[in-house]
Amino acid sequence: MLPDYQITEPIALVFGTEMEGVSEEVIDFADETLAIPMYGLTRSYNVSVAAGICMYELKQKLIKSGIDYKLSEEKRMKMKIRWAVNSMRSGKQIFEKYLRDHHLEM
Amino acid sequence: MLPDYQITEPIALVFGTEMEGVSEEVIDFADETLAIPMYGLTRSYNVSVAAGICMYELKQKLIKSGIDYKLSEEKRMKMKIRWAVNSMRSGKQIFEKYLRDHHLEM
Repeated sequence: MLPDYQITEPIALVFGTEMEGVSEEVIDFADETLAIPMYGLTRSYNVSVAAGICMYELKQKLIKSGIDYKLSEEKRMKMKIRWAVNSMRSGKQIFEKYLRDHHLEM
Repeated sequence: MLPDYQITEPIALVFGTEMEGVSEEVIDFADETLAIPMYGLTRSYNVSVAAGICMYELKQKLIKSGIDYKLSEEKRMKMKIRWAVNSMRSGKQIFEKYLRDHHLEM
């Protein structure tokens, strides 16, 4: 269950759809499955709520753990660029033009 | 902030809309305001994710606190009935017929 789960190494989370969950292949490939406890009249969470709860909980655990989990400045910058490029219409073209204009490579 | 918040008495949570939050009146009336920490590229949570995270976190705190927070059997039953009545089409009529047929009052 999520409240008891302890992070000890890098993990990737995979969320399934509300009705069918993740595929058999993913389950076979996974090291662990993790359940969010549900109480009262709750029967399921939609995937955004499930992801929100998991990431909130795991982030709090990371903060408390003392693990050095933060990305390096370089990785953070690369992730921000990827996010920006994917968020903008014509992001790829704008980014490529920027690199050309500034004689940069990436 | 939510991770540090400790429940010591019964509370009611009010969630606002993503764009405008709760109204001035509600803020004036509230004893406290509570923020969910956001990290990385997150800029806001929609209200279902915000509610999911808050209720997950507060429930875990309650479980750990040792507070006797559970509703009495009678209150739970009343809440289940209210939930069922509101979930069903014609729930109110079905419930009233049930009470009449069994000579019950509520």
